Amino acid sequence: MEFKKKKLANGLTLISEVNKSAKSAAVGFFVKTGSRDETGEINGVSHFLEHMLFKGTEKLNAFEVNEAFDRTGAQFNAFTSEENTVFYAAVLAEYLVEVTELWIELMRPALRDEDFNIEKNVIKEEIAMYKDLPSYDVLDRCRKLHFDSHPCGNSVLGSEEGIENLTAERMRDYFAKRYAPNNMVLACTGNFDWEQICSTVASCCSKWQKRTVRRKLGHCEGSKKKSSVEKSNLTCEYICLMSPSVSAQDRMRFSATVLAAIVGDDVGSRFFWELVDKALAEVATMQFGALDGTGAFCSYIRCSSDNVPKVFEIINDIFRSLSASGITEDELKTAKNKILSALVIKNELPIGRLVDLGFNWIYLGEYRTIEDDINAIRAVTADDIHLLIEEFNPGDFTQLSIGPAQPG
Amino acid sequence: MEFKKKKLANGLTLISEVNKSAKSAAVGFFVKTGSRDETGEINGVSHFLEHMLFKGTEKLNAFEVNEAFDRTGAQFNAFTSEENTVFYAAVLAEYLVEVTELWIELMRPALRDEDFNIEKNVIKEEIAMYKDLPSYDVLDRCRKLHFDSHPCGNSVLGSEEGIENLTAERMRDYFAKRYAPNNMVLACTGNFDWEQICSTVASCCSKWQKRTVRRKLGHCEGSKKKSSVEKSNLTCEYICLMSPSVSAQDRMRFSATVLAAIVGDDVGSRFFWELVDKALAEVATMQFGALDGTGAFCSYIRCSSDNVPKVFEIINDIFRSLSASGITEDELKTAKNKILSALVIKNELPIGRLVDLGFNWIYLGEYRTIEDDINAIRAVTADDIHLLIEEFNPGDFTQLSIGPAQPG
Repeated sequence: MEFKKKKLANGLTLISEVNKSAKSAAVGFFVKTGSRDETGEINGVSHFLEHMLFKGTEKLNAFEVNEAFDRTGAQFNAFTSEENTVFYAAVLAEYLVEVTELWIELMRPALRDEDFNIEKNVIKEEIAMYKDLPSYDVLDRCRKLHFDSHPCGNSVLGSEEGIENLTAERMRDYFAKRYAPNNMVLACTGNFDWEQICSTVASCCSKWQKRTVRRKLGHCEGSKKKSSVEKSNLTCEYICLMSPSVSAQDRMRFSATVLAAIVGDDVGSRFFWELVDKALAEVATMQFGALDGTGAFCSYIRCSSDNVPKVFEIINDIFRSLSASGITEDELKTAKNKILSALVIKNELPIGRLVDLGFNWIYLGEYRTIEDDINAIRAVTADDIHLLIEEFNPGDFTQLSIGPAQPG
Repeated sequence: MEFKKKKLANGLTLISEVNKSAKSAAVGFFVKTGSRDETGEINGVSHFLEHMLFKGTEKLNAFEVNEAFDRTGAQFNAFTSEENTVFYAAVLAEYLVEVTELWIELMRPALRDEDFNIEKNVIKEEIAMYKDLPSYDVLDRCRKLHFDSHPCGNSVLGSEEGIENLTAERMRDYFAKRYAPNNMVLACTGNFDWEQICSTVASCCSKWQKRTVRRKLGHCEGSKKKSSVEKSNLTCEYICLMSPSVSAQDRMRFSATVLAAIVGDDVGSRFFWELVDKALAEVATMQFGALDGTGAFCSYIRCSSDNVPKVFEIINDIFRSLSASGITEDELKTAKNKILSALVIKNELPIGRLVDLGFNWIYLGEYRTIEDDINAIRAVTADDIHLLIEEFNPGDFTQLSIGPAQPG
């Protein structure tokens, strides 16, 4: 593994980790923009814009964009979160330059009115579809309730009404402000020729204009509100709990990851033994979500409506005992073991490695080897975890549930 | 890559492909049993049994099973389909023997009454949860409609009522019949020591008793029935179409994969251009499902209710034009390109390779290198595809849709 980086005069940063023994290679544009960077009037524009990048440029129409991807046989996609929009592709090693050139071309989209108007329907259908998914709906509503007026509470998809009222002009304006080269990172991993990628990027991207790009930062303590929603057709209860945590930049982020695994890993965690193994809940997990300047613990529980009171009793017991007695060395060791193994396996494939490489640069402006992250996880102590519990008290949470209408 | 195999006297087959440059290794038990091997009275038992294997053995209780997995840091899971139950784990290379020993132990579960009774609730909650997921529900109902009395139409999860009536005694009986060593394959991939795995397996599994195991085979032409279901809370329409195809053993299975990609790959396919790109459907895909002795093409479409008539008009046009004019050389080339790239990237990671290695042995009793599969896909011609269209006429399908209640 060899790390290389290059920064163009306009601020575009190219980073890469070459692995000559891989058969594939991966490339991704990491754009530091998402729903938290939107105002209410344009909520959903980041995600809509992500779709529009596939609709073509001055040189290519949507059909030609797809043909161009097809020629490389790429597995490609994109996703938008509260704070990032990421475009990526995995290809056989010999196609990396070709697919990188294609992404570079797409990063300067035409954003044509007619494409915008057609795609608007796709977005509205996507919003409708996610409303049919209670597991997504509960997270979306709980994030809003928890972050309240903090921009991280903004919905990624936006509302059908908001999208209906959005204009192509406003999207073009947002694009010009947020897709500046100094607000993006281009990352490559796997088997490829660094010099060739460098010269491609330098010749294609140097004309992109630098701009001043800002983001409102600030920690969020969370509203700690409790709310519930009834939906007549559902058969079980979907519960989301959120509480504040450290940021993506915080040295304690590794401790937060370990704490979440101890409380709510899929298996072997406290939630697992007390709720899932006892058949009180079908799913009960907790994750740490690291954000720019803030963070949150997020738990997700699915159970039958009858079990809701018992489930909350147990969850409260788990958090109380965590605050009172802390964690055991055994729990610490096995949680670390699982996190380390998942980390190494994920990073073994170029497309998996791409995501960690890109996000480390986006959040920290720093190259970290897998070994750096392994060592940071190994170094977490029970005392670190106890400090985190004391500071953030995960038992004091925002709570939202969606379930079937109650009789009467 | 080096292939090795060993067969014990009781019929248990151990296969492996060693890759010394990998950091991880993967192991999986492939048991040739699923919902198609169930009678109506025990429908859902294969999937329920998959859960029960984690509940412990004579030596280990459920808690100790999880502790044992945790010690290896394994990423482990299991899944049940119409015809297979697969248990797998990915670990850092040094843990492969330990996690393999654990799986071997679990393959002879205690199936205790008290565990069975608790887990019954988990299964019923899982059934309830999947009913809340229209994308799953539509596939499950369409499979039943299409396969009709053919056992491949059996629900994998079973019904809440059927599970309620199932006894532990019946499960133990099913287990004894289906988890015979001659009905299982143990596969390993990645970086590990073959001799060590061999001696572990020989010493732990040789006492397992061989049994006569049968499966009802037979091709299924499909019912070609049309049906729809109304659910008041939904916001959009979920459509599933099924038509017959070749089996997992058929030489033409590669052609069927290519045909499905041409018609309904996520992007760049006929469905994509005619339905998704035109914003008439949010998703429209077609896949080839290879089964033991039979097979099916399965399409999945999600769209707004208003668009349903137009969507069906276009789908019928697509299949008509396919029968009348066939495919183009360009379509053939790009579809192959995408399939090849996905194949190579998936197989680059030991856990990805495990699945192909195991299923090739389960269905064909044959070791195939990645190169064998690459060459088979490269060899597909437009004539092969045209023969397939002629023989199976994918436009003549079984159809099931789930959508919001119609006004009036």
